[in-house]
Parts: sequence; C-alpha cells; structure tokens
Amino acid sequence: MPDYYHLRVVAEMNNEFIKVVKIKGNKVPWHYHDNSDELFYILEGELKMEIESESEVMFKSVDLFVVKKNTKHRVTSRDESKLMLIEHKNTSHTGNVTPEITKTLNRQIKYD
Amino acid sequence: MPDYYHLRVVAEMNNEFIKVVKIKGNKVPWHYHDNSDELFYILEGELKMEIESESEVMFKSVDLFVVKKNTKHRVTSRDESKLMLIEHKNTSHTGNVTPEITKTLNRQIKYD
Repeated sequence: MPDYYHLRVVAEMNNEFIKVVKIKGNKVPWHYHDNSDELFYILEGELKMEIESESEVMFKSVDLFVVKKNTKHRVTSRDESKLMLIEHKNTSHTGNVTPEITKTLNRQIKYD
Repeated sequence: MPDYYHLRVVAEMNNEFIKVVKIKGNKVPWHYHDNSDELFYILEGELKMEIESESEVMFKSVDLFVVKKNTKHRVTSRDESKLMLIEHKNTSHTGNVTPEITKTLNRQIKYD
C-alpha cells in the first residue's frame, strides 16, 4: 500500500539521519531548514525541485542535490518517486512549516 | 583510464563531504576514524567489508552501511566497485594511517 510522504530513518551517521521516502503529488509546501543543509538522492522516478528565485529542475534516478541551509524550496512528483534524504538530526523534514504530511521524528523511526 | 582509490568530492552538506571512488584490490589497510562515522553506499560492483572482531560482509549495489567512529575496518573489491562515501570534513579517508593510496583533501577536490 502506498504510504507517501512517510519518511523512514534507515541509518544515522555523525549528526545526520539517512532517510527514505516515496512521494507522489505536491503536498510538500515551500519551506526552509534553519542552519541545516539537506541532501536529495533520487532512487527511482522523477522529482521536480523548485528553489526560490531560481529555475526549476527535474531530477531523475541517481541524481544528487544539496539544498543549502535557509534556502526556500519545494519538491513535487507527478508520478511516484523514491528518494534518499539526508537531514540533520535536529531539523524537521518540513523545516519551518507543519503541513499535514509532517511526521514527528518518532514516527520516522518507529515502523508502525 | 582506471584511477582506483582516488576519492572525488562531489558535494558537501553540513559537516560532511559526499565523495565517489572506484576501488579494485586490497590497498585499503585496516584503519579507523577518530570520533567520526563513515557511510558507504555501493553504486556498482561488490565490496567486502571487514570490521574488527566481526564476520566479514559482502555488499552489492544499493547496499548502505555506516562504520561507526573509532571502529577498525578494511574494504576490498576483487573486481572493480564504485562507491559513494560520506565522511566528516575533518577526517582523512584512511583515518589513522597513511598508505600510498592516501590522497590529501586538496587532491580530492581538485580534478587533476
């Protein structure tokens, strides 16, 4: 059963969590991460990345991209995409906003 | 032309460098990283991971593994393997030892 937008922590290293997630649609709102970069690695599918004041970019499998700290961004997948994300342990995956898709860290670690 | 063991920095995030490398053979000696975890992600091929006092493990494409800080380890590829590594910006890729394959950070960033 699809479980879009539910990040899962699969590993940790130093101050970072390595997470995987499936996304489909446009439920991730514009947001930024205070003082923390975020790494996107595309495992499957295509991801549209929008960065404030820049041209949008389509990423596909094995593309890797780092959104720098304090940079407003938004991601969309028309069809399903599978991503690996690396985020600082102290950041929320939706940064400064809390839309309905926001999951607590506890729910990203506990596989319920 | 093969250029084994020459790590290349492809991105950075927070306090980490993301690197890629091709390896073939057994030129990586036993070593550990002071106070710093190291992430291995297998892009292509097979990698034998040895951790001190543990059974060796064969990793293959899309396997992900974190060697915890201060843990003695060694990697070997009988045939060519391609890896993505994530290492703290302040660590040497060969940790506490400096075999012939050790590259300065400058040579990992400059694509000569």
